[in-house]
Amino acid sequence: MTQRVQVIENILSANDQVALENRRLLEAANVYALNFMASPGAGKTSLIEQTLKRISSELHIAVVDGDIATSIDADRAAAAGALAIQINTGGECHLDAIMLKSALSELDLQGIDLLIVENVGNLVCPASFQLGTHQSVLIASIPEGDDKPYKYPGMYRGVDALVINKTDLLPYITFDMDYFRRGVEMLNPGLVTFPISCKTGEGLDSWIAWLRIQVSSHSIK
Amino acid sequence: MTQRVQVIENILSANDQVALENRRLLEAANVYALNFMASPGAGKTSLIEQTLKRISSELHIAVVDGDIATSIDADRAAAAGALAIQINTGGECHLDAIMLKSALSELDLQGIDLLIVENVGNLVCPASFQLGTHQSVLIASIPEGDDKPYKYPGMYRGVDALVINKTDLLPYITFDMDYFRRGVEMLNPGLVTFPISCKTGEGLDSWIAWLRIQVSSHSIK
Repeated sequence: MTQRVQVIENILSANDQVALENRRLLEAANVYALNFMASPGAGKTSLIEQTLKRISSELHIAVVDGDIATSIDADRAAAAGALAIQINTGGECHLDAIMLKSALSELDLQGIDLLIVENVGNLVCPASFQLGTHQSVLIASIPEGDDKPYKYPGMYRGVDALVINKTDLLPYITFDMDYFRRGVEMLNPGLVTFPISCKTGEGLDSWIAWLRIQVSSHSIK
Repeated sequence: MTQRVQVIENILSANDQVALENRRLLEAANVYALNFMASPGAGKTSLIEQTLKRISSELHIAVVDGDIATSIDADRAAAAGALAIQINTGGECHLDAIMLKSALSELDLQGIDLLIVENVGNLVCPASFQLGTHQSVLIASIPEGDDKPYKYPGMYRGVDALVINKTDLLPYITFDMDYFRRGVEMLNPGLVTFPISCKTGEGLDSWIAWLRIQVSSHSIK
């Protein structure tokens, strides 16, 4: 039995092994964790701010922010009421499980219900690195254009929920929503999708309802 | 003398050695080459289309498009009148000199004045890989937000010109141009900058004037 576990672990990459350890830490403390991924400027931090505004009275939320440089995002999350930790990757284009492990060691996980990990803004690299979070959320945005699922299939294929931000800009931008959705459906059939505007608040109720269900169905606190 | 050249070449990475070969090929054929880099959806392809529309009667232009998947961008460049080659990187988050070398071998360089290389949409990885082009152009865009120079310093530090696209969206988006420009100036003092809108055409004349000067000051054709 021990032998078999050893064999399974040996075929995992070093990153995946640490991701498994992170997951066990999160599970042991009953923390539900999400990995937010997106292009630079799609609105990950804005979605975190709007989410905190709507749900931080119900849940204890921590945010781990990954960026090449600065603590701009963690400062925004902290200002919005979260316990926030900034990871600066130096030059790395994505978070990895070892970086998240360091951040987890700084948190009192027992006091947290929901952990949001904000990855480095990048539609390619973060998709290849497991962190140990329970689910991944991709934040797309209208100004990025409707062809992104076709051009960045790895990212769209691997996520558990899709937020389409900046719908308030639809009147000013050519964006074929049917074409976009066909691309998503081809790569990730049935993917749960939330068109929203962090600016106007449109669509955020549905996102919050989904998030509430995810946390409560996971939680036994 | 030969010995010294050898020493210098040995300290270059494999990528940089091929980038040097690419540069020699381009120089030998008197082709001026630009590397376009940007976030996904910032408007690299739109800028190529608008550039072709304004200058393809004067110059022979070729476009090499790098994407994870699809030939959407090369198709758009070809429809706009360029000789276009698509490189699909598979999963790679950037072009490298070897990929560009393959594309160059498909082109009759003698018949080309200007080569535009459109890198993979990514604000991190492409900055680390020399291709052999003469200059690099970063296309930023208003919806990405005014904090991007601070958060992606490697990219902003390494480019020779900056285009700020989608200025038509300024009325609908909170974007502090002074804060953005201070970040750019800190990283890349005196960087030549073109605020433009590929949608309305605003600012494109200055960009085209700059481009014309770059090509003609390089060219002896």
